[in-house]
Amino acid sequence: MEPVFHKSSVRFRTERRQGAKSPGNPRHRMFVNRMPRYEILTSDAMDVLDTGWRRLLTEVGVQFDSPRALALFREAGQRVDGDTVRLDPGFVLEQVAKAPSEFGVRARNPGRSVRIGGDGMAFGAVYGPPFVREGEVRRDATMDDFRRLAMLAQTADALDSAGGVVCEPNDAPLDSRHLDMVRALATLTDKIYMGNVVSGENARDTLAMSSILFGGRDAIEADPVTISLINCNSPLCWDGRMLDALFEYSAANQPVVLTPFLLMGAMSPVTIPAALVQQIAEALSGIALAQLIRPGAPVVFGSFLSNIDMQSGSPCFGTPESGMGLLCTGQIARHFGLPFRSGGALTSAQLPDAQAAYEGLMTLLPTFLAGANFVMHAAGWLEGGLVASYEKFVIDLQLVEMLQHEFTPLEIDEASLAFGAHEEIGHGGHFLGAAHTLERFRTCFYRPFLSSSENHERWLKNGAADTAARAAGIAAGRLAAYEPPPLDDGIRAELDDYVTRRRRELGD
Amino acid sequence: MEPVFHKSSVRFRTERRQGAKSPGNPRHRMFVNRMPRYEILTSDAMDVLDTGWRRLLTEVGVQFDSPRALALFREAGQRVDGDTVRLDPGFVLEQVAKAPSEFGVRARNPGRSVRIGGDGMAFGAVYGPPFVREGEVRRDATMDDFRRLAMLAQTADALDSAGGVVCEPNDAPLDSRHLDMVRALATLTDKIYMGNVVSGENARDTLAMSSILFGGRDAIEADPVTISLINCNSPLCWDGRMLDALFEYSAANQPVVLTPFLLMGAMSPVTIPAALVQQIAEALSGIALAQLIRPGAPVVFGSFLSNIDMQSGSPCFGTPESGMGLLCTGQIARHFGLPFRSGGALTSAQLPDAQAAYEGLMTLLPTFLAGANFVMHAAGWLEGGLVASYEKFVIDLQLVEMLQHEFTPLEIDEASLAFGAHEEIGHGGHFLGAAHTLERFRTCFYRPFLSSSENHERWLKNGAADTAARAAGIAAGRLAAYEPPPLDDGIRAELDDYVTRRRRELGD
Repeated sequence: MEPVFHKSSVRFRTERRQGAKSPGNPRHRMFVNRMPRYEILTSDAMDVLDTGWRRLLTEVGVQFDSPRALALFREAGQRVDGDTVRLDPGFVLEQVAKAPSEFGVRARNPGRSVRIGGDGMAFGAVYGPPFVREGEVRRDATMDDFRRLAMLAQTADALDSAGGVVCEPNDAPLDSRHLDMVRALATLTDKIYMGNVVSGENARDTLAMSSILFGGRDAIEADPVTISLINCNSPLCWDGRMLDALFEYSAANQPVVLTPFLLMGAMSPVTIPAALVQQIAEALSGIALAQLIRPGAPVVFGSFLSNIDMQSGSPCFGTPESGMGLLCTGQIARHFGLPFRSGGALTSAQLPDAQAAYEGLMTLLPTFLAGANFVMHAAGWLEGGLVASYEKFVIDLQLVEMLQHEFTPLEIDEASLAFGAHEEIGHGGHFLGAAHTLERFRTCFYRPFLSSSENHERWLKNGAADTAARAAGIAAGRLAAYEPPPLDDGIRAELDDYVTRRRRELGD
Repeated sequence: MEPVFHKSSVRFRTERRQGAKSPGNPRHRMFVNRMPRYEILTSDAMDVLDTGWRRLLTEVGVQFDSPRALALFREAGQRVDGDTVRLDPGFVLEQVAKAPSEFGVRARNPGRSVRIGGDGMAFGAVYGPPFVREGEVRRDATMDDFRRLAMLAQTADALDSAGGVVCEPNDAPLDSRHLDMVRALATLTDKIYMGNVVSGENARDTLAMSSILFGGRDAIEADPVTISLINCNSPLCWDGRMLDALFEYSAANQPVVLTPFLLMGAMSPVTIPAALVQQIAEALSGIALAQLIRPGAPVVFGSFLSNIDMQSGSPCFGTPESGMGLLCTGQIARHFGLPFRSGGALTSAQLPDAQAAYEGLMTLLPTFLAGANFVMHAAGWLEGGLVASYEKFVIDLQLVEMLQHEFTPLEIDEASLAFGAHEEIGHGGHFLGAAHTLERFRTCFYRPFLSSSENHERWLKNGAADTAARAAGIAAGRLAAYEPPPLDDGIRAELDDYVTRRRRELGD
């Protein structure tokens, strides 16, 4: 319990000794989850849900705050009243069928490109927090925090992406900060990154900068390079500015994650089945629009599903209800043949403490059980997403790595039974010195970089740091060791020129 | 991070406000897990394991440090060389087939009796720690700690039992402390309790005291009242004193949990399949002995399976390997038609911090996925089981309750879709005031007693307590509110007389 944030020597030693890059923990490619899916919906239950979303789309319909969207739906023969579209379920399914079940997103480092869909799971950091917490300090996030969190993501084997708005850089000019963010993601990391969605104009800037990085507009249309989050203004309403961004990205064949934003009790009814039905109706209506914009455009069935505290109205995360919702969502997305986004390491906790860890894992473990294809908020989320925490970032990386190992199938064959070791060691013996052990001791078990199994005396001697303090040390150590990925000087200059010009145009 | 252990007013308020006994959290019966099992072994893999345990029992055999056990095996036609028995797999399976697949254990309060097996999951507290941690103090456990932890277990809806040695009472005389422990469990709680297994004599005392409580030896033989843990001295060796206890309990028809004690790399080879095969061989050999002692005696397929840190030799818990082992163990036990014990909230962490929570849940969530029937160490385990922590006890209770809710199937029908709420609220509206919400707001979501979703300002105002500090407050509050369950005066006097007489006989 004792604060030990100042004892940096302790923390650095911890990571070196335990070996984050030990031979036991190699990871060069994205994680593919070959374990079984945990499915909890019966086919009867699926039928009820199937009836539900059809009725919702047909009778209540969905609001689209976008004349362009309304025009597309009208042209496609859907019933448009004001800004509400009542959708024919058969039409929606026809559109959904045009979406690819799996697609690639290129990274600047080809070894870090990902495929979204199937058994693949791509992980990105927290998205959107206006604040950061670093040790005992909670403060407004800055562009410096943005860069440091992106650098942390670059050093993290478990992450395929820093994500997008890894924190909201409050000290950067509002109208042009998207330029700073995209440039930081594209230069400080060589992993895939998410596009800005605040407006159509911001989306166009993201696309222009991506074109500079990846060889032009035709190249990125042929082979997508960014993925963007389009949230629904739930219940059953799509916001105009977000839709403007959707139009830009889908027209450019860049993947979009169409995400119902459901805190049950606020943006949806309080029963999980009702939330699931609403989630289907919202996600499919957005996906249908994307397909009208560009048939075959890559899309992800999004889910952000939890509940509020019914006494205070506060959002809660890592709840039993959110866990069940997540498991169901995976099954539903597969039912429609779509890649899906869900999960992360979500929590309401104010500190990177026990609650932060258990709520994070209450979300993250079902994320693996459900086989989510695109996992936002996989590292750093604290306090209901208002805070990006450096310590929580490291704690979550530990969880993701552990789960990536746990969700790698066992090889079970005659040799793995190690019969010879039993003959060697005998009854009541000890296997530490067995030949079978000595051959495998470096790689036989996953070796954590954060968890400590030190005995009490050694732990005391090493500074008696709690897990959050050790995590702070690991974050500091990784940032100190960070090396920027190589980038062609010409491309870098062109990117800088673009940012300078656009910033001037935007008046910042 | 700030220590706030002195701010008791904060903590008491926390539990009252969040409502541990709120109408949303009723629980009167044991938990039955009606969700699907998560099974990861293919039938080919099961075949390989099946070949493996047969070979191990046939060729390497098992050591039994007990002339009585050796005699029984010899009479049954098994090959006995010295104290090693080489067992015929067919014979073993014949014995295993005599064991019930499910059985009851009576509690003093009939409403708290349990059934072990099937979909049932019974939960008990940590077992065996010589130390306790309370806030910043780590010290030798005492009989007072034992009583307080038993009292905490009595107040915990999520627990079916305080377990057995909820901590080792170091201030009680060694030879007679089992009397104090059994009396404390039997009088301070009205839940099922575990028997002492240090020796045959201690087992006889447990049985005698249980006979006093439950109406005599015939009554407890007809309807078992206690359950006891018999650990294997792995690899492949059963200890003489433990076996003496096994003889007493099985002869009296009291359930025993036959548990291979496997830290891979020390007590078993470092490959998970090898550990699983060894676990089967050990558990089945012990179960076969129990059936020779009394055919049909209730038994549980035990599992305690994790790994050591290959650099330091320290035990590690909540590891990816232990999680996989747990999932496989459930499938294996069902393959043999036996109830199984596994899981808990295990951790190597030194403090009730983030690591303690994530390692605990890394064990506890697979415990539910695997459907473990008897879950020891479900609350209070810290520091590799060396420490019983009051704060961790409360944290774990929170986890068990959350998971019990998460593993309760959804009801999905037309009504649950809440179509009317959508008609009422419309696009972009808010469901907090919907009629559907108002009818359900008290019970619609699980309401945690420990987790906080307070916003930053309120959390600061309420003392900025971290989760461990809040847990300490909840433990103190529950202990202050504890009420002993009723017990007949005559029985209590008879129990006290027995303890007094036996303590004198034992020279303490």
